[in-house]
Parts: sequence; C-alpha cells; structure tokens
Amino acid sequence: MLSFQKLLKAQQISKSDLNKLFHQADIYKTKLETNQRITDLQGKILASLFFEPSTRTRFSFESAMNRLGGSVVSLENGASSSTKKGETLDDTGKVVDQYADIIVMRHPRPHSVEEFSKHVTSPVINAGDGENEHPTQSLVDLYTIHSELGDIKNLKIGLLGDLKYGRTVHSLVKILSTYNCSFEFISSDELKVPNEIKELIKANGCSFNEHESIDSEVIKNLDVLYVTRVQQERFPNKESYLKNKDHCYLAKEHILNPEKLIILHPLPRVDEMDRTIDELPCAKYFEQVRYSVPIRMALLALLVNKA
Amino acid sequence: MLSFQKLLKAQQISKSDLNKLFHQADIYKTKLETNQRITDLQGKILASLFFEPSTRTRFSFESAMNRLGGSVVSLENGASSSTKKGETLDDTGKVVDQYADIIVMRHPRPHSVEEFSKHVTSPVINAGDGENEHPTQSLVDLYTIHSELGDIKNLKIGLLGDLKYGRTVHSLVKILSTYNCSFEFISSDELKVPNEIKELIKANGCSFNEHESIDSEVIKNLDVLYVTRVQQERFPNKESYLKNKDHCYLAKEHILNPEKLIILHPLPRVDEMDRTIDELPCAKYFEQVRYSVPIRMALLALLVNKA
Amino acid sequence: MLSFQKLLKAQQISKSDLNKLFHQADIYKTKLETNQRITDLQGKILASLFFEPSTRTRFSFESAMNRLGGSVVSLENGASSSTKKGETLDDTGKVVDQYADIIVMRHPRPHSVEEFSKHVTSPVINAGDGENEHPTQSLVDLYTIHSELGDIKNLKIGLLGDLKYGRTVHSLVKILSTYNCSFEFISSDELKVPNEIKELIKANGCSFNEHESIDSEVIKNLDVLYVTRVQQERFPNKESYLKNKDHCYLAKEHILNPEKLIILHPLPRVDEMDRTIDELPCAKYFEQVRYSVPIRMALLALLVNKA
Repeated sequence: MLSFQKLLKAQQISKSDLNKLFHQADIYKTKLETNQRITDLQGKILASLFFEPSTRTRFSFESAMNRLGGSVVSLENGASSSTKKGETLDDTGKVVDQYADIIVMRHPRPHSVEEFSKHVTSPVINAGDGENEHPTQSLVDLYTIHSELGDIKNLKIGLLGDLKYGRTVHSLVKILSTYNCSFEFISSDELKVPNEIKELIKANGCSFNEHESIDSEVIKNLDVLYVTRVQQERFPNKESYLKNKDHCYLAKEHILNPEKLIILHPLPRVDEMDRTIDELPCAKYFEQVRYSVPIRMALLALLVNKA
Repeated sequence: MLSFQKLLKAQQISKSDLNKLFHQADIYKTKLETNQRITDLQGKILASLFFEPSTRTRFSFESAMNRLGGSVVSLENGASSSTKKGETLDDTGKVVDQYADIIVMRHPRPHSVEEFSKHVTSPVINAGDGENEHPTQSLVDLYTIHSELGDIKNLKIGLLGDLKYGRTVHSLVKILSTYNCSFEFISSDELKVPNEIKELIKANGCSFNEHESIDSEVIKNLDVLYVTRVQQERFPNKESYLKNKDHCYLAKEHILNPEKLIILHPLPRVDEMDRTIDELPCAKYFEQVRYSVPIRMALLALLVNKA
Repeated sequence: MLSFQKLLKAQQISKSDLNKLFHQADIYKTKLETNQRITDLQGKILASLFFEPSTRTRFSFESAMNRLGGSVVSLENGASSSTKKGETLDDTGKVVDQYADIIVMRHPRPHSVEEFSKHVTSPVINAGDGENEHPTQSLVDLYTIHSELGDIKNLKIGLLGDLKYGRTVHSLVKILSTYNCSFEFISSDELKVPNEIKELIKANGCSFNEHESIDSEVIKNLDVLYVTRVQQERFPNKESYLKNKDHCYLAKEHILNPEKLIILHPLPRVDEMDRTIDELPCAKYFEQVRYSVPIRMALLALLVNKA
C-alpha cells in the first residue's frame, strides 16, 4: 500500500512508495510488451477531469486505465462544467466521488485539486494544478531514469532551460537530491533555479553547479540531461523571451557522449533544441512518454486496489 | 418490461414502471456495494449526446453504463456537432441510431429530444430538454426517498425555493401526488408553485399548504425537504434575485428534526443553504447523487434488454 | 493483411484490400445482427483525434472500436490540444503513438494526417484532412453498394450535386472506374466534375455522360444515385449558391424506378432533396450509416491484428 491516498504533490512520494510503484510498473511494462491481458481494474471507473485541456496527460491516464481493463468517464474541457453554474470545487468533488473509483484532475488554479478533494473518499491524483504541482510528471521522469539507467541513485543530472518556473524541474530535483545525485544547472540569469531548491540540495548533502551557457564538457559527464521549454508567457516582451530562449538552445554538436547520456524532456517542445538530436540514441523523450503508461497504471492500480 | 421505449417526460413513468425500476436498482445497488461484477450490457453501446454541457448528468449516465459492462460514445459539447452544418435533429437521430443500442440526450431547446427521437428505433432517454422536462431527475429523487424512507407513499413533502420554474419540482409533485403525499410549499411570492400543479394535487385527492417564509415548525413535521436553487437568470435584475434568494435561505437552526427528516437537492447548489447542514444526518443530497447510478443502471438495462 | 499500414487516401485501397475488407465486414455484420459477442480487439486502444469536430465520423469509428471489444481515448475538439502550445504535428504523432494501438485522425488542413503520421509506428487512418481526402467514406460507400447490390462491378452510377469540390465523389469515381462502371454526372456548370477525373475514367476504359439538369429518364436506368450536399461556402454569394442548389434539387417525381435504384448520400444533407424520398425503398442513406460500422470494424481489426 502507498503512503498516500491523495497525490497532491511530488514530495508525498516516499522512497518506499517509489519502490512499490517501480516494481508494479515493471510488471505492467512486461505484460504490455508481451500482449498479456490485464484485468486488475476491471469494473472500476476513472473520472478524468480536465478543467484545462491537456491531451497528452489525459490520454496517458485514460490509456493507463483502459490497459488495466477499467473504464473512464472523461471531461475533456471543463469549460463545460457545472462550476460555471457557481458550484464550489468542494461540492463538485463530493458529486464526482459518487461516480468513480478514482479521480484524476487538472485545473489551471494552484491548490484547486486540494480544495476539490477535501471531502472526496476515492483516491485523487493531481494531474497539474496551474503553476503549483504536477507530481505524476516527476513519477514519469523518475521511472524513465530507473528503466533506462537501472537505478536513480548516485547520478549526475543536468537541467537545462527554465529552471526558475518549471514545476517539474523543482519536483525532480527535490526527489533526486535524496538519492545522492549531483546537479548541473544550465540557464540564463533570469531563469536560474530558486534559492530554496539549492538550500534543499545542500541540506540533503548533495552538490550542484550553475552555468550560464551550454558547455559540451559539462554535458559530457552527465548521466541525464533534462531539457525544458522556455515559455514566452514568462517574459515581459518577445525580445527578452528570444534572448533567453536562444541562450540555452541545445544543438547536436553539444552532445559528445550520445551513447552514455539520456536526454529527457517533459514535452511539448517548441524550438529549444535541434530536432536532429532525435536520431541520437540518447534521445529518450518519446520513450519517456511510453514509460508514462505503465507507471500511471501502477499508480492507479495501487491506489484503487490498495494492494 | 417498461411501459415506454422513449422516456421524454416524467409522467410516462407508471407505478408499475417505478416498481420494476426500484426493484432492479436495488439489485444493482447491492452488487455495487459488494463489488460484484455486472455484465448485463456487455457489448452494448450508449450514445451520450450533450448539446449543452452537464458534467453531473453525463457522468451519472456514463458511469451507469460502464458499471453495466457496456461502452459509451460521448458528445461532451454539442457545439461540435453536425447540426451546425444545418442537419435537422430528426436526421441526427436517424444517424446516431445506427451507432448505439440506447441514446441519452440533453439539449437546451424544449421538445428537441422528442424531435430527435421521432424515427429512432433504439430507446431514447431525455436527460433534460431546456425548461421542459428532465424525467430521470425525478427517478433519482423518488429512488432516494424509496431507499432512505422505505417507501414513497403517505409522506409529508416540503419543497423550498424556486417552485415556479423548477422542472424537477413539478415532475416530483405530480408523481408523489399519486402516492397520497401531502405538500408544504415554501417560496417567495414571485416563485410560487403554478396553479396547474395545485389543481392536479387536488384532483389526486392530496392536500397542500403554501408558506411565504421558512418556518421551523413546518419543517419539523416533514419526512422530506426538497431544496432548489433560485436561479439569477429568472429575475429582471440582481436586486430582485437577491431578495428572492435570501427570502428562502435555509439555515441550520431551521432544522429541529435532523434524525427523522431527509433533505434533498437536485444540485448544483449555490448559496441557498447553510453548508454546515452537510454535517447533519438529514443531509442526503450527496447520497442522492450516489443513488443516481443504480437507478439509471436499472433504466438503461430494462430499456435495452426489455427484460 | 492489407497493402497499407497508414490509410491516407482512397487510392491506396487495392482490389485485394477491398475483398478482404468486405469479407471481414460481412462477418462482423452478421455477428452484430445476431448479437454475437466480438472480442477481436479486446485490450487494444484506439486514439480518436478530432482536431475538427465531426460527431458522425467520430461516433462511427468509436462505435466500431467498442463493438470489437476495444477501448477508445478520444479528442472531441482539438482546440483543446497541445498543438496550441506550439507543438508540431509530427511530435504530436510521436506522442499519441505511445498511448494507442491504432489512431484515427481528422484535421481541417490538407495533408496534416500525413505530416502527423510520419514517425508513427501504429496504424493511422485519415478520417478527413480538409478538402483533401476522406478514404473511409469511400469504403463505406463501396461497402453499401456491395451489400445492397451484391457487387460493385459493371454498374451504372449517377452522381448529383457538387461534383467539383466533393472529395468523396472523386474518390468513389476513381475506384469504381476500375470496376467497369459507367457514370452519369448531373450538376450545374459551376460544379462539374474536374477534367482529371474524366481523363482517369477514360484511361480505365469506362464511359460517362454529363447533364446540366436532373432528367428522370437518366435516373431511371441507374443502379446507384449518389447525392451530395451543395455547400454554401463554395460560392461567392448567396444568390449564386441558391441558383446552384436549386438547379439540382432531387424531387420524388424524378425517381421512376424506386425498386431497382439505390440512393446514397454521405450526409449531412440540408435541402438538396425532397424528404419524402426517405419513404421509398431506394432511400439507403441511413442504411449507409449503418454499414459504416462493420466496414470500419473490419478496417480497424485488419490493421491492428495484421490478420
């Protein structure tokens, strides 16, 4: 059994939880690859509530539920919701709770999933509440590293792009810093990793370096390079955006160790990297999408079946 | 077998229909509570057509269909429909009829479901056609009373709020007046129950009283208090709305018999009642949502399987 | 096994493909009519991506997948897609590929499905890419003729209405001209069939005639009359549209052989024909909708199972 019933933020996931989730995801991954029928959530219903559209995350969860033999009731675009009639999120939670065995929710407002889940008795998973948290993205990232490199311990992790606002970057670093990893932060000055994260890394006894531009010698020694999208809406004007974006553009020639490194990206990507990198063996961002299904299957199954 | 193949309005539901539906719903309720697998509509398809969004009603029907082992094709927001290309509802009906074994439809225009279903051979359920009818809400209300109080006969029913426009209130009263119930109508002068309903109650040999404000002595003797939302769009201006709304605000101290009474509400609610009432044992509006699943399962199964 | 893995245009469908698809569709049609349970795609997932809404086509595919025992992840309205965040269609394809065993896609832009499918390893079906292609509509048309008339060879085919822009008309004629059919084209001067289509008919050794108005003597000798909608958006102004539309209006009295002829229409229809024609035995456009399910089941099953 997992230590939580409602997954609101990445830090709720303990090391023991991660072990259980990885173990179960490995089982599902093998079954999927060998076309074995899975019926672990047969007869169960997932309510998939997207008050802000996200085809990627929604499909990943709904696909995971279907692969488990379960059913889905889906809200693709919550503009079509009775919260428009003035219902509180708390009430919406109590209502949806009656229709489903587990609920996944995305909402543009920070802490909305917490508010929604206050009186819900079914398990609830935060699939992104605005700028606040998106804990299952961290699960996907960690499971990808685990699967590709065999372990998530003692790694050299590079993080590139928007290290200031990126919620997935912060969650990932927080967790990996408890696994004795070291970090290379590569970003423009405006997008540097916040001090609180650096303090946490130190408190966990890990080391980090900061770089203001891409250096292939830094990348050469990495186990993982995590690339993020620099979002235009973070900047006061287009010029400032373009300057920041170009500053951290990842070119193919930056990668001197394509056999050893793995490159991850939470996607979607726009133009923060050279697309010819896709051809390199280190490009693992679409495999990362594939890993999202078994790890989310594990999460759904362990929460519903409390096994 | 039910007496209807297309459920367009609440009055089509005979006493014999209600008995069959309650009986089947009780069976499903027990199976759901004891986690028994149900496959009564395995291989069958529900077309769930919402030309106006309603997450609550849609999820209730789709959840019911999934719990029966069936599948769903779903239109979340009919703005995305070919009626936009100028197709008549009659044609849309003939088309959707080819894809499904049963059809549930909501549409903002009164009598649209009737128009849609004219040439449809599959069963059709009206899930709300504007201000006209929403017969399965009455089914849910009645099944909740049946389940909570053991019977729907000889009860004292209080109805509070918008008794003029509320389609669910009218349907409920029409049916309960054939079960020897008496009624206490509580509303502002502008929102009083229409004369035609009062005439029907008399014709059925039942009694009623009207009250212009909430009186805890009236509530004290009730078996059921049915609260409705006062909708701002009914009033010429905000002042008029607020006056009417506050007039019938239900406070916790109005309830002197929280052990005997049950309070229902079709939801969503906005601010027509004190939320601390939720903690009282009489607050059954979220249970009411839960009861919506087995009773809609019964309706779907009896219509498709004609058992 | 079919000769294609990605169905982007009607001309990819070979005679051998058609035979296999018809054969499999006939099997499914019988099973559906006799209520036999089908589990050929149990555990498989269809991603149904509609970047432009089309309830008819979407429901047809999703119903087909459900009838095969499979599951669906559905995008009803792609306005809610991460392509809005600037993702390329190529990337979207690589992502969705991880979630599904087969993908159906509609998009308003010509050749978008091809772009999307470039790196996709799952089978992909074009469900309409703007004015370009809609190959499964041709499959449905052909399967309807096959089922109603026993064969698609040596037929006299009339085509009425918009023969210039109608993508389904062009695909249908291209394929039927390889089955020794002859054609009667009936349209206003502005909506005549393009020269390239006429050249192809000749190259395939078939004959055709063109008519500028409806002639019941022409219709009398037909095996199939295929009616299309004249779309207002094709014309510079409303007058021009109305003139063209009325020019080819099909009245009941035009049909002298209602027992022999079959009338098809890709639907939706607006006012290009007299609705009392629906009562004639030759009106097969709603049966055509019904045939869409087994033929799309056959397509899905043969692509996924590569049988």
